[in-house]
Amino acid sequence: MIVVMRTSATEEDLSRLILALRERGLTPHVSQGIERTVVGVLGPIGPTGVPNTVGSLTPELGAQLESLTGVESILPVSKPYKLASREFHPESTIVRIPSPVGDVSVGGAEVVMMAGPCTVESEAQLIAAAYAARDGGASVLRGGAYKPSTSPYGFRGLGEAGLKLLAKAREETGLAVVTEVMTPADVGLVSEYADVLQVGARNMQNYYLLDEVGQTQTPVLLNLGLAATIEEWLLAAEYILARGNPNVILCERGIRTFEPSTRNTVDINAVPLIKQLSHLPIIVDPSQGTGKRSLVGAVSLAALAAGADGLIVEIHPHPEEALKDGAQSLTLEQYRDLMPPARAVAQAIGRDLAAPVASPIQLGA
Amino acid sequence: MIVVMRTSATEEDLSRLILALRERGLTPHVSQGIERTVVGVLGPIGPTGVPNTVGSLTPELGAQLESLTGVESILPVSKPYKLASREFHPESTIVRIPSPVGDVSVGGAEVVMMAGPCTVESEAQLIAAAYAARDGGASVLRGGAYKPSTSPYGFRGLGEAGLKLLAKAREETGLAVVTEVMTPADVGLVSEYADVLQVGARNMQNYYLLDEVGQTQTPVLLNLGLAATIEEWLLAAEYILARGNPNVILCERGIRTFEPSTRNTVDINAVPLIKQLSHLPIIVDPSQGTGKRSLVGAVSLAALAAGADGLIVEIHPHPEEALKDGAQSLTLEQYRDLMPPARAVAQAIGRDLAAPVASPIQLGA
Amino acid sequence: MIVVMRTSATEEDLSRLILALRERGLTPHVSQGIERTVVGVLGPIGPTGVPNTVGSLTPELGAQLESLTGVESILPVSKPYKLASREFHPESTIVRIPSPVGDVSVGGAEVVMMAGPCTVESEAQLIAAAYAARDGGASVLRGGAYKPSTSPYGFRGLGEAGLKLLAKAREETGLAVVTEVMTPADVGLVSEYADVLQVGARNMQNYYLLDEVGQTQTPVLLNLGLAATIEEWLLAAEYILARGNPNVILCERGIRTFEPSTRNTVDINAVPLIKQLSHLPIIVDPSQGTGKRSLVGAVSLAALAAGADGLIVEIHPHPEEALKDGAQSLTLEQYRDLMPPARAVAQAIGRDLAAPVASPIQLGA
Amino acid sequence: MIVVMRTSATEEDLSRLILALRERGLTPHVSQGIERTVVGVLGPIGPTGVPNTVGSLTPELGAQLESLTGVESILPVSKPYKLASREFHPESTIVRIPSPVGDVSVGGAEVVMMAGPCTVESEAQLIAAAYAARDGGASVLRGGAYKPSTSPYGFRGLGEAGLKLLAKAREETGLAVVTEVMTPADVGLVSEYADVLQVGARNMQNYYLLDEVGQTQTPVLLNLGLAATIEEWLLAAEYILARGNPNVILCERGIRTFEPSTRNTVDINAVPLIKQLSHLPIIVDPSQGTGKRSLVGAVSLAALAAGADGLIVEIHPHPEEALKDGAQSLTLEQYRDLMPPARAVAQAIGRDLAAPVASPIQLGA
Repeated sequence: MIVVMRTSATEEDLSRLILALRERGLTPHVSQGIERTVVGVLGPIGPTGVPNTVGSLTPELGAQLESLTGVESILPVSKPYKLASREFHPESTIVRIPSPVGDVSVGGAEVVMMAGPCTVESEAQLIAAAYAARDGGASVLRGGAYKPSTSPYGFRGLGEAGLKLLAKAREETGLAVVTEVMTPADVGLVSEYADVLQVGARNMQNYYLLDEVGQTQTPVLLNLGLAATIEEWLLAAEYILARGNPNVILCERGIRTFEPSTRNTVDINAVPLIKQLSHLPIIVDPSQGTGKRSLVGAVSLAALAAGADGLIVEIHPHPEEALKDGAQSLTLEQYRDLMPPARAVAQAIGRDLAAPVASPIQLGA
Repeated sequence: MIVVMRTSATEEDLSRLILALRERGLTPHVSQGIERTVVGVLGPIGPTGVPNTVGSLTPELGAQLESLTGVESILPVSKPYKLASREFHPESTIVRIPSPVGDVSVGGAEVVMMAGPCTVESEAQLIAAAYAARDGGASVLRGGAYKPSTSPYGFRGLGEAGLKLLAKAREETGLAVVTEVMTPADVGLVSEYADVLQVGARNMQNYYLLDEVGQTQTPVLLNLGLAATIEEWLLAAEYILARGNPNVILCERGIRTFEPSTRNTVDINAVPLIKQLSHLPIIVDPSQGTGKRSLVGAVSLAALAAGADGLIVEIHPHPEEALKDGAQSLTLEQYRDLMPPARAVAQAIGRDLAAPVASPIQLGA
Repeated sequence: MIVVMRTSATEEDLSRLILALRERGLTPHVSQGIERTVVGVLGPIGPTGVPNTVGSLTPELGAQLESLTGVESILPVSKPYKLASREFHPESTIVRIPSPVGDVSVGGAEVVMMAGPCTVESEAQLIAAAYAARDGGASVLRGGAYKPSTSPYGFRGLGEAGLKLLAKAREETGLAVVTEVMTPADVGLVSEYADVLQVGARNMQNYYLLDEVGQTQTPVLLNLGLAATIEEWLLAAEYILARGNPNVILCERGIRTFEPSTRNTVDINAVPLIKQLSHLPIIVDPSQGTGKRSLVGAVSLAALAAGADGLIVEIHPHPEEALKDGAQSLTLEQYRDLMPPARAVAQAIGRDLAAPVASPIQLGA
Repeated sequence: MIVVMRTSATEEDLSRLILALRERGLTPHVSQGIERTVVGVLGPIGPTGVPNTVGSLTPELGAQLESLTGVESILPVSKPYKLASREFHPESTIVRIPSPVGDVSVGGAEVVMMAGPCTVESEAQLIAAAYAARDGGASVLRGGAYKPSTSPYGFRGLGEAGLKLLAKAREETGLAVVTEVMTPADVGLVSEYADVLQVGARNMQNYYLLDEVGQTQTPVLLNLGLAATIEEWLLAAEYILARGNPNVILCERGIRTFEPSTRNTVDINAVPLIKQLSHLPIIVDPSQGTGKRSLVGAVSLAALAAGADGLIVEIHPHPEEALKDGAQSLTLEQYRDLMPPARAVAQAIGRDLAAPVASPIQLGA
């Protein structure tokens, strides 16, 4: 249920509404727009610890609320996801990622670049990639310390040692760090090192993991599952939001189709569709989304033109030696060369790339 | 087989090579680049009327050709499609569409806009859409006179009456006309009225239709099939090329996936992939590709940023009254509003929109 | 609209109803069941030559018809396909295929085997396969004279010479013949030779071809398209039925999925689903449906257990030498060995294999 | 690497080989067939705790082993999965599930029935379903205590209370119990109550969960993921096997396709394909696989005819009141009626249904 306030509503009107909702065991989510305020309402907290959206929002209640001063109308939420829907929360959400040199904002006018190796392999590899990422305009460093491996005999990442290298790279370069967390038991540890927790495609419906990251306040980068629908994706986001963490960024990284010549198919339609259905920011991963280095540039530009709030790109100092996904990693030079056209496309649609991160040393940090 | 000429090769060297190939019953396809000339070679014409690519290209033959003056090297073609491959024909093809006011070039630096109603319904509807298309910068008018209808009880188009209205709109506005042809027996008739023959998604592997349009010289707009792979698409193009019609434009219009909230999924990866695999121009249909008016704008910009050579967009003076596909048709105003950002994105990657078509009246045509 | 007659309705009641319908320009389709009679009603013939199902079935008309003696109730048809739906035609349809030694019935208690080579290659190959097919219990010989080839350089079949060999094999063995027709212009010629016209997967939505085979009375074997839905399939059948040919047999031959280790995926759910939605017989092609000889046997048995009315299986005297699809063709011995378990499974669900075809020579034919 | 022993090899030859392998840090897996013995060989245990299959199997080592008495040949394993492959382990595996009244064998000549409600809702519901399952011939009771819910507001199961009800039902009826475990932290608790741990489709690539169930000896029922390939499925099984748990049963429960009229599409090809690629037993879930009660019967028979080692079917005393998946649950009567044709189909291919479970009371248990 959504309560739309009149443009003439006062702070007192709002407070009275909130009080009325709380007295009935309901949870208000206030969304203050430029013109008017909208209050999303969820039902009482149920036995599973998340608000119950079913059963308690009767017509009588609607009539009572509509009679309050300052309330213009009461609307149902038509989607199975509530907190994630734009109906419920009309203003676009900006997720702030803390970094050593100031917050990085995802979802605002400026497009955010995230880059780094698929996998953290060594200090030399990571630091080289981190400097190149920053020089190329990235604000966030990606790098996997825990890696999903289709085979049990494959490389599964450096684990905590990898996290420590990421922390070191952050300290040196001033970049924020995003890295994947794969199981609920690791959320605490990874949160100590990372600024953004990535939930991978295979875990998009790992509900215990979603519950766990939902209980932190750390920003979460939530990948689209390989065969998930848009609605399932937003319901996965809803898990995190319902647990109390509002800092969700969606990451489109391709879906599985029958096309054999690319690793995945980037569903470009999803970018504007998410913008209509949800207030959450969305970024695109053209590396996973194509699986081919030669396609990453063009698909990056397409994602920005479609309205993505950022890109996350795999880069590697020596892709041909990469332990994983070398074929889809840009060289450091290719990454640098992608930035000028990326900036031009962002500007063409009235946005811009986020300003480069200042060096922590320059800042005296 | 591909013969790469030395940069120092003379016209005489080339003539000698061509003669040597013809004497052996082989067909040369000369592709003159800025730096050097490449000659694609197909085998003798087989009993089905198309060149046989198998069997005749022996190592002995390779050695003989390599010994000719001016020949640098002989390379096999690694793909099942030959004439459609960029290996075979390294220069990008520019397809010229004749129009009352001069040729429209597809595949060059300028991006071409095609627009019009899904279906030709009446003179008033078509002419209004045609003027709006032209005012919005389109060079080509789309409109279906023969429509595929999933149901036998559905509307199947006005037929020849629709073709006549298209011809009238061309005369009035100076726009070239593209319209679908659905069966071999209609190719002659449709060619009399249309400047471009569109082969629809359901007919991408209708080989008799491909044979028939391949025997004209009219440009063909070849849609990607709903469940076709990129390789199958290029092999469908190869059918047309092998029959002797070099004027093929590819049209990506979405593939079928399990995502229920959009009609189709635009495979944006296909745009740069086609550019690498083939020399043929490629345009994108964001109307069929999304099925939702509200997504058409963003996906149009994405297609241009990815490198598409044009767009084909459904527009309608009154979408809510359209006989078909109203939900995915832009209003005339929405179409006009799409052009400035489209131009900006095209310029951001070093291209531009094609100049507006001059009125035939202004030209005294 | 469906008119359900009372169990007590007389022949006169039925005649009166039919007259009443015809007077109003409507077309009755009488379906006489064991217990009661049901009359499907289509609207007047529209300008495209097929009955118009929209607009004319008003509540007033319903009330008038319901008042007639013998009429129990009037029901709407809830599906977009009418003639193909089981609502409209509750009794299962049995399609009779003429053969030199008597009709073959598809859709009755007995399961029908169709077998033969993918492609007609030579008289020796075809005759060997035909005798093996018959010895293994088949009533119908398959064999392609016109072949869809993904590449323009591939083998496209022997054409009319292939049709003549099929006719010869029919004469020798007494088997009926099914062969693919690919384009409207060939329907007349192929009908001269074949007992069943197959419409291939790529042509499931070739509406001109559907129109054309719909204007014959020759049984049509209609393949499921590679990415078609069940509803689209039944609408394709509706095209044929609406044109006046009631003899449609559906053929499930696998859909395209992202599983790379099989050529297609047999959608086994489709078999009972079609039985519920439609009265038309359905057979399964495990050769196309798997692409692997080693899977054909098990999938054949599964199809019969699921309720398929028959199988169409590719066999070849020397699969390793086949021009097409050798990898999915059974040897003649493998085919023979499949029949005893096939019979046992058919009997396990209360059906049986059709009796072997008698030799025309034995019959003195 | 696989060592094939001569048919004349003695026990001593085998012991000598095993010793030779162990001395080199390699792990032998002995598979004693009727005719000959085959020894699969994995490399030394690596730092991740699973054997390393790469690098240590040199040609020199091959030559040394081939020279041992009794060794016939050394073969590489061609698949990325080793322990799960039939090459490596030619004999079919029979997984034994402990039950109060004796082991249930899955993978032998007898087909095993598993049945029960989607979700444990109450003691009355579960006990009624359990008795009906047993009366209908099931040996294993299914029932979800932890349920994946697409929405955070959906029902997520009774948790441990549900496990206790399952244990009670087992005690009363003598049926073994299979229930889903969704997160590594729950494996210990669920193992205390369940005889088989089910890993759901969404968790097929939850590697931490696979690791954890791999460290028990409890049989694991491993669902095919919604968009997983056969190879990925067998690699998920390999995770469990590589951790030391040999008791893996595969469960095909449908894949996601673009067909909207069924919940999922049962890939029937997968049943014989798994039998060829792997030695592990495979069962089919026609309830999840179709989503429609009316299709469950036919698809069950198809699965058995294709060679499945069992079925897992959702049943409910009052499907219309079920909390989850009522539309795909059979009534108790429908389930009972399915057993006679299921038995007949099993017998038609030379197998049989497992004998009914004796009552624990009859046994005095």
